[in-house]
Amino acid sequence: MMAGNSAEQGRSVTSKVVSLLDAFLPSARELSLNELADRTGLPLSTTYRLATQLVQWGGLERGAGGGYRIGLRLWEIGSLAAGGSTLQAAVSPFMQDLYDATHESVQLAIRSGHQALYIDKIAGPRSTPIAVRRAGRLPLHATGVGKVLLAHAPADFVEEFIEAGLRRYTAHTIVGSIPLRRTLAEIRRTGIGFAREELTLGSVSVAAPVFDASGSAVAAISLVLPSTTANLGRLAPAVRAVSLGASRDLRNRSMTMTKPTDQTH
Amino acid sequence: MMAGNSAEQGRSVTSKVVSLLDAFLPSARELSLNELADRTGLPLSTTYRLATQLVQWGGLERGAGGGYRIGLRLWEIGSLAAGGSTLQAAVSPFMQDLYDATHESVQLAIRSGHQALYIDKIAGPRSTPIAVRRAGRLPLHATGVGKVLLAHAPADFVEEFIEAGLRRYTAHTIVGSIPLRRTLAEIRRTGIGFAREELTLGSVSVAAPVFDASGSAVAAISLVLPSTTANLGRLAPAVRAVSLGASRDLRNRSMTMTKPTDQTH
Repeated sequence: MMAGNSAEQGRSVTSKVVSLLDAFLPSARELSLNELADRTGLPLSTTYRLATQLVQWGGLERGAGGGYRIGLRLWEIGSLAAGGSTLQAAVSPFMQDLYDATHESVQLAIRSGHQALYIDKIAGPRSTPIAVRRAGRLPLHATGVGKVLLAHAPADFVEEFIEAGLRRYTAHTIVGSIPLRRTLAEIRRTGIGFAREELTLGSVSVAAPVFDASGSAVAAISLVLPSTTANLGRLAPAVRAVSLGASRDLRNRSMTMTKPTDQTH
Repeated sequence: MMAGNSAEQGRSVTSKVVSLLDAFLPSARELSLNELADRTGLPLSTTYRLATQLVQWGGLERGAGGGYRIGLRLWEIGSLAAGGSTLQAAVSPFMQDLYDATHESVQLAIRSGHQALYIDKIAGPRSTPIAVRRAGRLPLHATGVGKVLLAHAPADFVEEFIEAGLRRYTAHTIVGSIPLRRTLAEIRRTGIGFAREELTLGSVSVAAPVFDASGSAVAAISLVLPSTTANLGRLAPAVRAVSLGASRDLRNRSMTMTKPTDQTH
């Protein structure tokens, strides 16, 4: 036995397998064997053995560049997650209605850890400077959907979120706890949230919450459009109307989503 | 040591972990511990230990009914698969154009084993009797997208597929190898495939292939609509046009997809 192997041996195989999957990121979709070993802290031989087993299963596949990437089998299994494709499928017709009515970009997001996780989007013909992708993440306090989700999050989560610090993205980002709390109260009162160039200059959004059958605000729908748009408030009733429709539909189908975990990935 | 444990001990932990994930299906989204153990053939204690590790990671979560279901972390990682969300994101604007031009249901599918795997859909206001969901599967020889994908599959795959038997779904399903081969040749010649009540009575579709930068037909786009529609052929140029546009876009971005595996899940 070599010294230094004990930490490696202390990890369960499950934790090694999931660390292999966790190594892939939107910015790192194809990884070489060496990169995989580096990112997981596993010996090359272990990395190779586990990656080979995952390729045989279909959870990983070999990319055009010879490296590994996430395989379609994981996409297919992941689509069974209640918070992902199931929610997306339920809300999709309402998003489509909103797109048809406005021809602006439509987003659907949930809260995941300290971020807004984008479940679905319909890209409008006027693409905006900030293009979030499906399964992409953006900060809670600087986006329309994020502020709506934060407005309906448990009080102790909001405390913890604010204490972790409110990062500034533009001159318009709300970085003070008092103005943020005021904004969240306003969102709860009106049922609508606005973000005006708070994440990216040139981009504004209007968002509203979607409630599941248990009454939890499980998601938020938004329109994102160029800040040159004369009157953002004009679009609020449309966003509000489809979010109410989607909420009623989830209620009628008795659909409930798992509460968001507060862990950050 | 008890007899009967040897088969169990012969399985790698990786294979046990993936068998746990494989146990979940569109028709079985929430499974109790007993059901998980039954479906995987693992002892209850092993099932519990591995499921608990997967819950800690976020790949599984506890459902409202107390059972286990696929967690959002798997959805997020799965979205990095090139054949899934990456293809979907690239083709999405073209699907949206097709929807805007026709207001009929739009589908995007790839070949996965002996089936068409649906990557994305836009549900039209006239919903059709057959509602396929994202990540759902339908037979290759009885759908528009399926026949288009089959028409561009390797010859030996087509042979094997035909030899496995062409199941009849309606009186219109093509179940003979000669008519099917003739249809596939016609699709290759015209660039368009039709399905007329071949899977479900009352539902017709028109489909066209999407080629990646390497020239492989990696996907098919279709419109599905009620069979009462007077003239299906009228919609063919629109489907063909957007599939050409999507193919050009993949080529311009040098996007290639992994070849479909021929294994059936």
